[in-house]
Amino acid sequence: MKTHFQTIVIGAGSGGMTVSIGLSALGKDVAMIEGLHVGGDCTNVGCVPSKTLIHEAKNFRAGMNPDNALKETIRKRDELRDIETEEVKEIENLTFIEGMAKFTAPKKLAVTNAAGETTEFSADNIVISTGARPRQLKIDGLPDERYLTNIELFDTETAPKHLVIVGAGVIALEMAFAFQKLGTKITLFALDNRALTTAIPEAAEAVQASLDRKGIITHYGATAKSFDESSRTLTLAQGDDEIVVDDVDQVLVAIGRVRNIDSLGLEQAGVKSDARMGISVNSFGETNVRGVYAIGDVTPTSAFTHSANAQGRRVVQRIAFPLLPMAKKEPIFPNAIFSDPEVATVGLTSAKLESSCHKNAIKRIRVDLKGNTDRAYTDGIEEGFIIVDAVRLTGKILHATIVAPHASEMISFFTLAISQKISLYKIYRLVYPYPTFSSAILKVGDFFMRETLTNIVGEIKAYLRYRFARPTK
Amino acid sequence: MKTHFQTIVIGAGSGGMTVSIGLSALGKDVAMIEGLHVGGDCTNVGCVPSKTLIHEAKNFRAGMNPDNALKETIRKRDELRDIETEEVKEIENLTFIEGMAKFTAPKKLAVTNAAGETTEFSADNIVISTGARPRQLKIDGLPDERYLTNIELFDTETAPKHLVIVGAGVIALEMAFAFQKLGTKITLFALDNRALTTAIPEAAEAVQASLDRKGIITHYGATAKSFDESSRTLTLAQGDDEIVVDDVDQVLVAIGRVRNIDSLGLEQAGVKSDARMGISVNSFGETNVRGVYAIGDVTPTSAFTHSANAQGRRVVQRIAFPLLPMAKKEPIFPNAIFSDPEVATVGLTSAKLESSCHKNAIKRIRVDLKGNTDRAYTDGIEEGFIIVDAVRLTGKILHATIVAPHASEMISFFTLAISQKISLYKIYRLVYPYPTFSSAILKVGDFFMRETLTNIVGEIKAYLRYRFARPTK
Repeated sequence: MKTHFQTIVIGAGSGGMTVSIGLSALGKDVAMIEGLHVGGDCTNVGCVPSKTLIHEAKNFRAGMNPDNALKETIRKRDELRDIETEEVKEIENLTFIEGMAKFTAPKKLAVTNAAGETTEFSADNIVISTGARPRQLKIDGLPDERYLTNIELFDTETAPKHLVIVGAGVIALEMAFAFQKLGTKITLFALDNRALTTAIPEAAEAVQASLDRKGIITHYGATAKSFDESSRTLTLAQGDDEIVVDDVDQVLVAIGRVRNIDSLGLEQAGVKSDARMGISVNSFGETNVRGVYAIGDVTPTSAFTHSANAQGRRVVQRIAFPLLPMAKKEPIFPNAIFSDPEVATVGLTSAKLESSCHKNAIKRIRVDLKGNTDRAYTDGIEEGFIIVDAVRLTGKILHATIVAPHASEMISFFTLAISQKISLYKIYRLVYPYPTFSSAILKVGDFFMRETLTNIVGEIKAYLRYRFARPTK
Repeated sequence: MKTHFQTIVIGAGSGGMTVSIGLSALGKDVAMIEGLHVGGDCTNVGCVPSKTLIHEAKNFRAGMNPDNALKETIRKRDELRDIETEEVKEIENLTFIEGMAKFTAPKKLAVTNAAGETTEFSADNIVISTGARPRQLKIDGLPDERYLTNIELFDTETAPKHLVIVGAGVIALEMAFAFQKLGTKITLFALDNRALTTAIPEAAEAVQASLDRKGIITHYGATAKSFDESSRTLTLAQGDDEIVVDDVDQVLVAIGRVRNIDSLGLEQAGVKSDARMGISVNSFGETNVRGVYAIGDVTPTSAFTHSANAQGRRVVQRIAFPLLPMAKKEPIFPNAIFSDPEVATVGLTSAKLESSCHKNAIKRIRVDLKGNTDRAYTDGIEEGFIIVDAVRLTGKILHATIVAPHASEMISFFTLAISQKISLYKIYRLVYPYPTFSSAILKVGDFFMRETLTNIVGEIKAYLRYRFARPTK
């Protein structure tokens, strides 16, 4: 058996697959090591089953059996996993190795298989793409069979009557809306004081209005105290108050993720990492050790399948064509949350906006779908908007957040506009099909033009005064 | 009563409203004349009720009463019409005049109201936006109460058990899919040899596959011979064959539209028009008569609400700020068909492509959603693709057609790319949220890069040889 490769990829998730398939297609001699399932979180316990479930839930109606939606989700997930597993084993130039990898030196790995046998492998390049796992929560008195994370959730074949969800981030919200549609009663609580703390507050407000209208109960600033099995009650603490949640069937813990870096033996390789931020890399995915790369959830900058793929593509180019010029900066990563309505964002985060620009240098434009698009009228849409932050006067777009039924499909317009530095003046000249939610983009342009042209002297003054001023709180 | 205005707008549809509201907001003295309903076809018998019905149909499930969907469609349409009618009457600087207008001289109109009284009006500028009406079809033996166009359709409160649709264009297809979801049996026939003759054949094929799977019966190259009321059978001729369609409840005729220009007295104004192409205008909406403009369905270039609006915006600028520089060309008009899946297109039509470029100068890239996007897998999507025609080597995008569940929201990406001349090289560098249908755009970029970079010498040769060559069939 071969033990040296041009590149070894640790982890067969989205990022690892991108690198393995990409390099082997270019004729490089590649090994991919995986300890669990091909496809990683995305295929097995993430995007694929969650989006399948969301789709099933959308088509679910009274009178149907919700368990069928869960079983179909599992069936499709298993089918895709099988296909991907077979495909990986048939790729030319790619050796698939099952086992857990641990560095013994900068370019050496000890891989232990399920039988406990360890083999040493070495490579010119090693790519770490081991991803992350759910953060766990201890709830006193809660029996194991009632405790779920996204891992156990997608092996569940019976829809709970009452599901408690801990957390108010992406997974928590996507599953709250999906299970609500399947007829499950949902109680969601979180330590945070609102949903979606990574998004702008307006997005959280819109999603909260939808949660409320759908009868999903939410408690913020709340923590779990204990669970009583005999009465199936969960007691929460919210400040000095106690909240008692009755008739709980299962508890889904979705309070964030922990990077899978602790058992990799990074210290033997000399790879720098940090418990909170993960493995530090430059924009090319290079760690501090030459020839060792990291991509995806183990890095500080990427927590999505598409960003892991994008990083993987850059690493492929770096390894295969080291002399080819390459953009210094990573591309812009959009993100999308498949809640109801969807939330999609691209560009600077609020924190980054605040720290890099004076607030008077920025114009925030908000166009609500309701009242501004006839599609919201025909489709009976209540929540939703497009918010754009742009530089005053120049109309350069810095950030866009869309809350809309298909925000995930609409956001790429702004990814393109931001990447190509297309100002709101140009966006104002475009024609958008009627009746769509996208036609709200036209109103964003209108609003900017109206405010700018009717006060051109004021806008020029503000631009000159604040554009390069220090940011203030 | 005032009889002279700075501008008179004939027709209170989408285009006319855009001009009237735009100019009156700028302080111009405007009159808008309407013989029927405020809102025109779009609000009353077009986009608004059709999209409401499509939305109701999407949410319809076995056990529900389809008549409620129709009634809700009418209710929402009437509500919007009432709102728009009230709003129009309250706009400052805008006089709303009910009646039918007819030119008596280049800047003079005779307006006859419902009581038969005629008043003369004059204006510095007159904007013709009288739209179009459904083309009628005589079917021997078919009683009036079984005959529908889009006008009567949206006053129907009872879903037919069996609806025959004549035509295979936008309205025909949208209504076929919507009524099929409401449980109506659909038989569609058309003189054309395929659906959607204005779109590329691949789009028609995808939509046809969806029609077939949903059990919608289609007959192409077929014409109506006669209807027998006693047996409720419609007989069609298809070449030498006869097709007998049984148990017909209603027949929806959707075979195109006729411009509303015949009773305008255009000859008195000296405005040039053509029975087939309508009123000829330049890119600013100017007819051959100074101060007389035409926009929307009466012109040769626009048959959509959004294009009528876009033309209206240009006319507002032309009338209000005649000295302000303005782009010579009209903006690019995308279009969208809300079939299932949706079809959206932007850029050069196939005919224009063929007549303006040598076919060897163009690379056509097709990425099917199934097999290329995980979203197609999770959502069980069979048909759908992104097709892009680009100039070889340079990657300049000339045309894009998207067939996908939310194609109407995805197409603006390509409107922006084409307008701003963003090549496929740049699109290749973008990151698209996962899992979306939009991620197929990345594969379009990949495909182009792979084909171009692996054969760069051949591509350069082909580019130099064919880019400026005469087109051939």
